[in-house]
Amino acid sequence: MTATIETMAPIWVRYKETLDALSTYIGKTTHSEVPLINQVAQYTLNSGGKRIRPLLLAMSADWCGASDRAAILTGGAVVEFVHTATLLHDDVLDGAQTRRGTSSARAIWGDHVCILVGDYLYTLAACQVSAMANFEISDLFAATCREMSEGETLQLVHNDNFDLTEETYLRIIDRKTASLLSAACRFGGIVAGASDAQKEILSHFGRNIGLAFQVADDTLDYVADGRNLGKSLGKDLQEGKITLPLLHLLAHCTPWERKQIVSAPTSSETAVDRLNDVVSLMQRYGSIAYALARAESFADNACTALSAFPDSPCRQALFAVADYVVHRDR
Amino acid sequence: MTATIETMAPIWVRYKETLDALSTYIGKTTHSEVPLINQVAQYTLNSGGKRIRPLLLAMSADWCGASDRAAILTGGAVVEFVHTATLLHDDVLDGAQTRRGTSSARAIWGDHVCILVGDYLYTLAACQVSAMANFEISDLFAATCREMSEGETLQLVHNDNFDLTEETYLRIIDRKTASLLSAACRFGGIVAGASDAQKEILSHFGRNIGLAFQVADDTLDYVADGRNLGKSLGKDLQEGKITLPLLHLLAHCTPWERKQIVSAPTSSETAVDRLNDVVSLMQRYGSIAYALARAESFADNACTALSAFPDSPCRQALFAVADYVVHRDR
Repeated sequence: MTATIETMAPIWVRYKETLDALSTYIGKTTHSEVPLINQVAQYTLNSGGKRIRPLLLAMSADWCGASDRAAILTGGAVVEFVHTATLLHDDVLDGAQTRRGTSSARAIWGDHVCILVGDYLYTLAACQVSAMANFEISDLFAATCREMSEGETLQLVHNDNFDLTEETYLRIIDRKTASLLSAACRFGGIVAGASDAQKEILSHFGRNIGLAFQVADDTLDYVADGRNLGKSLGKDLQEGKITLPLLHLLAHCTPWERKQIVSAPTSSETAVDRLNDVVSLMQRYGSIAYALARAESFADNACTALSAFPDSPCRQALFAVADYVVHRDR
Repeated sequence: MTATIETMAPIWVRYKETLDALSTYIGKTTHSEVPLINQVAQYTLNSGGKRIRPLLLAMSADWCGASDRAAILTGGAVVEFVHTATLLHDDVLDGAQTRRGTSSARAIWGDHVCILVGDYLYTLAACQVSAMANFEISDLFAATCREMSEGETLQLVHNDNFDLTEETYLRIIDRKTASLLSAACRFGGIVAGASDAQKEILSHFGRNIGLAFQVADDTLDYVADGRNLGKSLGKDLQEGKITLPLLHLLAHCTPWERKQIVSAPTSSETAVDRLNDVVSLMQRYGSIAYALARAESFADNACTALSAFPDSPCRQALFAVADYVVHRDR
């Protein structure tokens, strides 16, 4: 891992004012004439997410020497609205009862409301983008949302597919997760009036941060302390989402072990036993270590291009985020 | 109803080439890297819809003297993508087994696929809008999609609400249906380089056409010949959607009759009996006639502003559509 001087603590302090202003801006912007929409949107937007996408946008803008705070707030709202829209639809797809340790919106208001409020948040993002009157941002927003829905669909297509290749797995997480983190960073570059070269580097940085983030997330689903991450363990396995540690295990275990993994019953009564068996095997075959090493290597990739630029507090802060997305729960 | 010289037949002939070109364009544009998306999108986009929104867009552009055929096709694809996205999500919300007389996409591919392909079609529309590089169109697109999702949510909020007011009913259909027809007409004006006054008239025309269309549709749900409309009767009643003919009935029937209507069981075995009872009452109290008169009055409103402009084949064609949306299944 690239050596980092900063950790996240001073970064959260430095961006507290920006993120607080963003919360105010988001609260002001979600003012539908339909009170239920505001209620569900506010609940989900304020459910304890770290706002890592708006943070990356603001940091990227700062790295490029931005001064347009209004555009940073609008951009932050756009990426947070899009992210929250996907959370609402994801929870419907997953039948999720909880999100970040508390009741999911669908557990409170039901699937139908969450589908529609998800749609609403996409359109709210589109309204904000349109108000920015910047074709480069419009293109980025539309292409990113398209990639994300393609990634989600691709994931659905490969649900329960134990023959998934690592290449397709990476394509899925690239589209469903990394595209938005990449867009957040590039967005920051655009509002800062960055050069094409800087914007390319930010896109690359964000995409690799996104891959690192999702691979780490998929690994923590097997081994994290559930309380810290606000999620329960083994969800992916139970939902038939085949992720990197499991792919590694399937490629290295014996045919008999593979048969046990693939044909294990998925009822909730046996879920804990099944998870324990799979995690034991993952530890034996080094699958957890493999996946975390992959996550670290994506984080390294993210930083490589930035390394060519002079050292600065902004660059150090971006390095710290690259470290954070891999190591946040250990 | 304003006297019309044309009927729809010559209009379908006149716009056949445009609508055929639109189908080709739509086929070319839905080319996701995820084959399932293309399959579901194509199935839904080609399931026999009349493409009334792209038609209105093209006719509106022609009324303003348009010559930009490429923009008319792109705009037609945008409004058709948005409309189809809402159909996919609507069918999930309604648990619909059929759509236009054939299996609904959700009956074939399931709810999850339809949620995601709906999302994809919204983003595809956003990509097309972005490529047009016209801020006025971006604003129109974003605001329209927002209104539509608000209308859908408002409808959900008032499901099974037998105390719904006519005002709120009109607000729901204005947002969920009329907004897109209004946008289609205005979109035509924008691509034709129309004056602000012309664009306002087209917005007004489309909005009233949309209200007429939805009120007629809601009425035909009680009395249409199901085969012609490609839909089954009594769906709204069964799904708890309180529409104009029912609102009229509830406002005019006796307290005892109201109690019967409100408390009737909604099981599918008794659905036909319940529908027959309600339709008999509607006929006795003139509720069907009232709702159709309201639809005609919206169609009249649509034409009023156009009447101030000189007579022309384009204007006559718009009048014919106003007539068609009210009388299409009788």
